Amino acid sequence: MNEFKIKFLPHDKEVSVKKGTFLIRAAMDAGVHVNASCGGEGVCGKCRVLIETGDVDEGITEKLSREDIDKGYRLACRSKVKSDLVVRIPVESTIDVSVLNKLATPRKTARIKERNLEDLKEKGLFVPPVVKKYLELPPPSAENNMADVSRIVNALRNEHNEHRLEFNMPVIRKLPDVLRTADFKVTVTIARGVRKEGKNRIINVEAGDTTDRNFAIAVDIGTTTVYGQMIDLRTGEVLAQYGDFNAQISYGEDVISRIVFSEKEGGLQILNEKVVGTINQVIDQITKRSKVDPEEISTITLAGNTTMTQLFLNISPRYIRRAPYVPAATLYPPAQAFSLGLNLPDHVTALVYPQVSSYVGGDIVAGVMGSGMGHDERLTLYMDIGTNAEIVIGNKDWLVCAACSAGPAFEGGGVKMGMRAAKGAIEDFSIDPITLEPMNITIGNVRPKGICGSGLITMVATMFEVGIISSNGKLNRDLDTPRIREADGVYEYVVAWKNVSGIDRDIVLTEIDIDNLIRAKGAMYSGCMTLLKEVGLDIHALDRIILAGGFGSFVDLEKCMVIGLLPEIDPGKVTFIGNGSLLGARMSSLTNRIRSDVGNTLARMTNFEFSETVSYMDNYIAALFLPHTDLNLFPKLKSRMEARQKLKT
Amino acid sequence: MNEFKIKFLPHDKEVSVKKGTFLIRAAMDAGVHVNASCGGEGVCGKCRVLIETGDVDEGITEKLSREDIDKGYRLACRSKVKSDLVVRIPVESTIDVSVLNKLATPRKTARIKERNLEDLKEKGLFVPPVVKKYLELPPPSAENNMADVSRIVNALRNEHNEHRLEFNMPVIRKLPDVLRTADFKVTVTIARGVRKEGKNRIINVEAGDTTDRNFAIAVDIGTTTVYGQMIDLRTGEVLAQYGDFNAQISYGEDVISRIVFSEKEGGLQILNEKVVGTINQVIDQITKRSKVDPEEISTITLAGNTTMTQLFLNISPRYIRRAPYVPAATLYPPAQAFSLGLNLPDHVTALVYPQVSSYVGGDIVAGVMGSGMGHDERLTLYMDIGTNAEIVIGNKDWLVCAACSAGPAFEGGGVKMGMRAAKGAIEDFSIDPITLEPMNITIGNVRPKGICGSGLITMVATMFEVGIISSNGKLNRDLDTPRIREADGVYEYVVAWKNVSGIDRDIVLTEIDIDNLIRAKGAMYSGCMTLLKEVGLDIHALDRIILAGGFGSFVDLEKCMVIGLLPEIDPGKVTFIGNGSLLGARMSSLTNRIRSDVGNTLARMTNFEFSETVSYMDNYIAALFLPHTDLNLFPKLKSRMEARQKLKT
Repeated sequence: MNEFKIKFLPHDKEVSVKKGTFLIRAAMDAGVHVNASCGGEGVCGKCRVLIETGDVDEGITEKLSREDIDKGYRLACRSKVKSDLVVRIPVESTIDVSVLNKLATPRKTARIKERNLEDLKEKGLFVPPVVKKYLELPPPSAENNMADVSRIVNALRNEHNEHRLEFNMPVIRKLPDVLRTADFKVTVTIARGVRKEGKNRIINVEAGDTTDRNFAIAVDIGTTTVYGQMIDLRTGEVLAQYGDFNAQISYGEDVISRIVFSEKEGGLQILNEKVVGTINQVIDQITKRSKVDPEEISTITLAGNTTMTQLFLNISPRYIRRAPYVPAATLYPPAQAFSLGLNLPDHVTALVYPQVSSYVGGDIVAGVMGSGMGHDERLTLYMDIGTNAEIVIGNKDWLVCAACSAGPAFEGGGVKMGMRAAKGAIEDFSIDPITLEPMNITIGNVRPKGICGSGLITMVATMFEVGIISSNGKLNRDLDTPRIREADGVYEYVVAWKNVSGIDRDIVLTEIDIDNLIRAKGAMYSGCMTLLKEVGLDIHALDRIILAGGFGSFVDLEKCMVIGLLPEIDPGKVTFIGNGSLLGARMSSLTNRIRSDVGNTLARMTNFEFSETVSYMDNYIAALFLPHTDLNLFPKLKSRMEARQKLKT
Repeated sequence: MNEFKIKFLPHDKEVSVKKGTFLIRAAMDAGVHVNASCGGEGVCGKCRVLIETGDVDEGITEKLSREDIDKGYRLACRSKVKSDLVVRIPVESTIDVSVLNKLATPRKTARIKERNLEDLKEKGLFVPPVVKKYLELPPPSAENNMADVSRIVNALRNEHNEHRLEFNMPVIRKLPDVLRTADFKVTVTIARGVRKEGKNRIINVEAGDTTDRNFAIAVDIGTTTVYGQMIDLRTGEVLAQYGDFNAQISYGEDVISRIVFSEKEGGLQILNEKVVGTINQVIDQITKRSKVDPEEISTITLAGNTTMTQLFLNISPRYIRRAPYVPAATLYPPAQAFSLGLNLPDHVTALVYPQVSSYVGGDIVAGVMGSGMGHDERLTLYMDIGTNAEIVIGNKDWLVCAACSAGPAFEGGGVKMGMRAAKGAIEDFSIDPITLEPMNITIGNVRPKGICGSGLITMVATMFEVGIISSNGKLNRDLDTPRIREADGVYEYVVAWKNVSGIDRDIVLTEIDIDNLIRAKGAMYSGCMTLLKEVGLDIHALDRIILAGGFGSFVDLEKCMVIGLLPEIDPGKVTFIGNGSLLGARMSSLTNRIRSDVGNTLARMTNFEFSETVSYMDNYIAALFLPHTDLNLFPKLKSRMEARQKLKT
């Protein structure tokens, strides 16, 4: 048995967790606050809890007296679950338990959704764009001395019903020798045309039967990170995955600074070489890890935002950052991978995901294709949250999209103590509404070093719900706690004192940080509002939300709705697809249906430039509150706030 | 007035020639024999003729006495026509003039046929596969910020009815800057798909209106020589032409020795580099001579025999020379010219003519396409005569083809004193049937150095008709002349004595030479017989003959029929198209109809391997006589021979 039930008292909250889970994470999941500012390293000693029933591993430190230990007290942050438990949280204040219950909302993250390959297979859509066929040919004779190419074309036509065949030149070059070495028993690789009436290209010929070895690579070219997957085209399985920082990063953190660099003398060349180099490293890693011979790879599909795509293809992105923001192209022709600088054999075709506009790029198109939202009846909101957040709304009949300048707050940028979601980042947070003491949970259970995006959202949402942060993002200066203070003219809340932090100073959340978050979420939310308004709908029409991007996997959906980042919706209707760009690239490798659909989908994706959309600025200004100037858009939160108000009075 | 009438007495033959023509050539054209063994350099002094009426320039040398000069004698080989003339040939023998008349047949060369461009235009077939379109685009604005590529596609679609457009990557790379430099007034180059439903590729974009500058290159890759032409795609005009020896020639004279060399370590690479180098030189020359900027070139179309094509494409020709003689491919995909090593900008597409078989190559397919025989009602014999002679027979309904191992006799190879058609080569010949004295006419009117193909044919035909050479190719040993002698056990005829020859010895025609010529013509003729027989026809069914190859322009058609190289047919039905390979390459550059037809034509060209065709050997053996064992196949010759027989008796 690996799942145990933990009951927290006096809250009377129950949660199921896996064996070995730290008790403090179980409490967080149950929505139970435990004072804990040191991030789970056992330093502050504040997370003392009483194990009333059951047993835990560890949890005993010098912070606990002999007496306490004997009574059954443990540090929640160091205790690992090993049985069903009843745990009592010492409530040292006089707070009414019923208040605790009202405030506690169990953490709800998005369901992780994987496209089901079996489903594709059942629907007959598992038709990889590249297939292998094994042929046993009659050797040439005086009566039948047709050309080698014709011999193969004939066999494919007559025995495999393959038509409109065309050979790549390198295949013709090696064909005569391969045929004779292999005694005319060979495997050919056919790359299908995108359109039904298109040509089927023979891109490789190998001696013997190699039909069980056919692989494809999918790549997401991110501004920050490049991810690659090696895919088995027989099974659809991902054999290896690897991610590496985009080596362009030394020339600028975001796309705008990259574009600026590309305009310098030789800049484009450098950025092109850097990203191609990174992709080559990723290819090298996944090839080694999956033990695939590069000769067995048939295609590589790449998706990236418009700037990354143009830099990868060595096309100046100069006009992307200048009004009226014109990309070079939306659709790119298939190319030989090596002609783009990729270290792949010359038979490998590179397919590049098309772009909608300068700021809605191939990564988003890939996500839309990979998620299948363009074939779904339900009205879906697709959000890829990052520095440049993109939104797509629509269903099988129509699609609208836009990019929002959310700023880097969700990735820890523009936040005083902000950091990426790395070890030491506070990723979860709770606060005691009476003592105002925090509960910090960090990635890696080490002393906190900073606050990552999901931590920031939870922090602001939690503090807003208990009234520490007001609707306009200000800290309540009347509260009696040393944690709220003014420094250099800016009010801030001390999340972790220097003595328990992993850095040499206090970790704080400032009003400027809160303001940046409000601007970021305001941009996103007003983006959705604007798109919906442009098509004559309102926010209640949404049937579901798909989150993409590294951000979406950890974030507490309820908290996102509290700050007004996401529209209020049943969290069960929110799914997380992870790296949508990589998903789309992989799906394209597996089914030709997606490749043939992408042109149509692209044509259906109506792009809005918010800088040119009059209603956007009004929506944006209205969204610069927690959760929004119009509280009726968030009815559940509204009723909780009203309940809290009643409790107070 | 530039044409003058020359009447020769006592033969009473008349001919029209241009001003400045040497009198000896006028005599040859009229079929009048004049003793002249020195090739026209005035050395032997034997071509003394009497100018009875009219006047000539020059023609006076030390070989003539003062008295002769006063009487009006001149040397025919040094006299230039400058008025109408009556010229008497001193007949020093007692031969009956009527015999002379019977023997004399005026020289008849093939009509040179040029495909008429106006005709193509009238039929609406002048649709070059590459066109330029000038566009004045609306610059991007906030309301219309579509991608640069989309802007062009839209304009082409809406204003020029162009569809299924696809961009080459290099065009996308330069497009954004070109558009803005040119204020959105640009010219795009569209390469049409071969098939109607194929894609139209945009291969170039230039600033401003450059529609008046659009060029194509046509290349014939010959085993010996590479020819190129620069073609203006607006007018169809050839702006420049250049030929150069194929630099592969140092590695072997014929295709077989090249294949052998290609099989050595590194041999293929060397031969590939050599022929690509030669083509690049040709490109360079025609580009300079036509003052075309390489950027203005849109396509290059190349045709060559199967071995040359494979060597050019860097495909081992190893199996071409091994039974069952299998080429790598028949059809080759279009390729980027630079990817094949050609010094052309990266937008230029290279189209390579397809092959029928290992020995009926792209040069022949190009000739068939260029001559239009596959669309003609008439049953046509197409012959490309060279070392490897190819034959195509057919009409609009069917086509059969084969290669004959004619051997190099037609190019002066395998002949003791044989040489290419260069300065000093005896290219025309006549003999006095009584004195057995020759009349040699050389290229360049210099002392003879050897015998070229057309000279050899005329020589053997003439000597056969007057009975010096017998039906089985033997010299008549009974004749009383020092010119027929035995040397090293082989009988020979002295064409020019050492004292008048341009080399340090006598120039002779040996029985071995005659035998080689008989084998060569036998291979060709029996090839025609065999192909016709295989389709159930006989030689009389032929409506016309098309000759291709350098050989065909000079040769006397009647003489070809005398030796049995060509079937007996009205010489007016024989046309000469010169370099058929180059013609086809040029025609393909001018009309997409040919490009789209070539696949169908290829499929209709039924190839015969004579080594596998039982009847071929029988036909060959029957053809090893002058003109043939069956004299009924040559009725006109038969009647002349019977007349001669009657005169003798």
